[in-house]
Amino acid sequence: MKAICFDVFGTVVDWRSSVVEQCLSFGREKNLDVDWETFVDRWRSCYRPGMDAVRKGVLPWTNVAGIYRAALDILLDQYSIRGLSEKEKVHLNRAWHRCAPWPDAVAGLTRLKEKYVLSTLSNADVACLVEMAKSARLPWDCILCAELFRHYKPDAEVYRGAVELLGLEPAEVMLVAAHNYDLRAARSHGMVTAFVPRPREYGAGQTSDLRAEDDWDLVVGDFEELAAALGT
Amino acid sequence: MKAICFDVFGTVVDWRSSVVEQCLSFGREKNLDVDWETFVDRWRSCYRPGMDAVRKGVLPWTNVAGIYRAALDILLDQYSIRGLSEKEKVHLNRAWHRCAPWPDAVAGLTRLKEKYVLSTLSNADVACLVEMAKSARLPWDCILCAELFRHYKPDAEVYRGAVELLGLEPAEVMLVAAHNYDLRAARSHGMVTAFVPRPREYGAGQTSDLRAEDDWDLVVGDFEELAAALGT
Repeated sequence: MKAICFDVFGTVVDWRSSVVEQCLSFGREKNLDVDWETFVDRWRSCYRPGMDAVRKGVLPWTNVAGIYRAALDILLDQYSIRGLSEKEKVHLNRAWHRCAPWPDAVAGLTRLKEKYVLSTLSNADVACLVEMAKSARLPWDCILCAELFRHYKPDAEVYRGAVELLGLEPAEVMLVAAHNYDLRAARSHGMVTAFVPRPREYGAGQTSDLRAEDDWDLVVGDFEELAAALGT
Repeated sequence: MKAICFDVFGTVVDWRSSVVEQCLSFGREKNLDVDWETFVDRWRSCYRPGMDAVRKGVLPWTNVAGIYRAALDILLDQYSIRGLSEKEKVHLNRAWHRCAPWPDAVAGLTRLKEKYVLSTLSNADVACLVEMAKSARLPWDCILCAELFRHYKPDAEVYRGAVELLGLEPAEVMLVAAHNYDLRAARSHGMVTAFVPRPREYGAGQTSDLRAEDDWDLVVGDFEELAAALGT
């Protein structure tokens, strides 16, 4: 094994707390009375259907920033939040670029980087992943993502494309994810798989991906355990 | 200006000395009597025609590793170097992945990274650039290159593609290169341009790109000067 690819949202960063916090701060500035947790959950709920519409050819290629922005415009209307400038909307939409890592993430990645090539393999777009890495100090060697292939996970093009760009065989590349569907697809293309549960990704009431649903090559509690399991 | 893209071969790394040195070492191991400087110059001379054949549609998309490998096989035959294993040929071809940076490069990039997003914008492939960054400790935020767009510089797709993936406007992105043709193309797409001469890129007898051939936005002696000029 030479390279490790990481799903990012949920697996590396705690997007929900991060986006809720930024929305709360925005709401205070704007003096808005909104249940921001619900707002963010509804915003996030547009993500998978947006990508699926692209995957099924209903929508032409649209990156995740575009999917979130379309959803944001609808939500702002539904919540009767009016009068925001374009600049403010762009800033709010970029809340997804400014997510904090889970507490173990940077330490684990830093250890793993000494021995392996570390890449993202996310459905998010390049600009988002680059800005996030910069602000959260995520030590990627490489930013690979759906946008490069114009296909979203779990489409085969993303996994196969990443392995090909890394110049490796599938068995030389591990995918680390907090989502069983992602690992299922990676394994079907011959990649090594590691599951890291993130039981608070969706907040206190999370019901999905609480545990490994298959015999993944590794199942570890966090990125420090992953680093130890991989001899770093 | 928010991001800086760098041409890599010649601009960031001293490919000629690095590849010649590796060939010399290989020749000693194999007890071969070859003028390796000439060998490497001939090897490199296949690079531009190979890319141009792709650009003109004479060849289907072939990454630089593929171009160098085809050229290597021809050269080995011309030099009557026979009996190498496939593994040895792969290793020799990867000499291009293991190039040392110019002495000012890492220090300059490290300073620039504090303020700007730093990306490659190279005709080399992702695997090459990732391996090189790892071995030479080049602190890229992002690996962008021709392979992602299946077009070689100076095709428009590479410059426009990089700006788009970074989520920026052309005027927010600088290209740094030791080659005037590259800056000419970048400027034609609205990017900011900086020229750093590398008068020994092709060895002692270099005749091209010894000086800026246009009024580039910046002309600096090395990456430390670039870092200073950009306030880092």
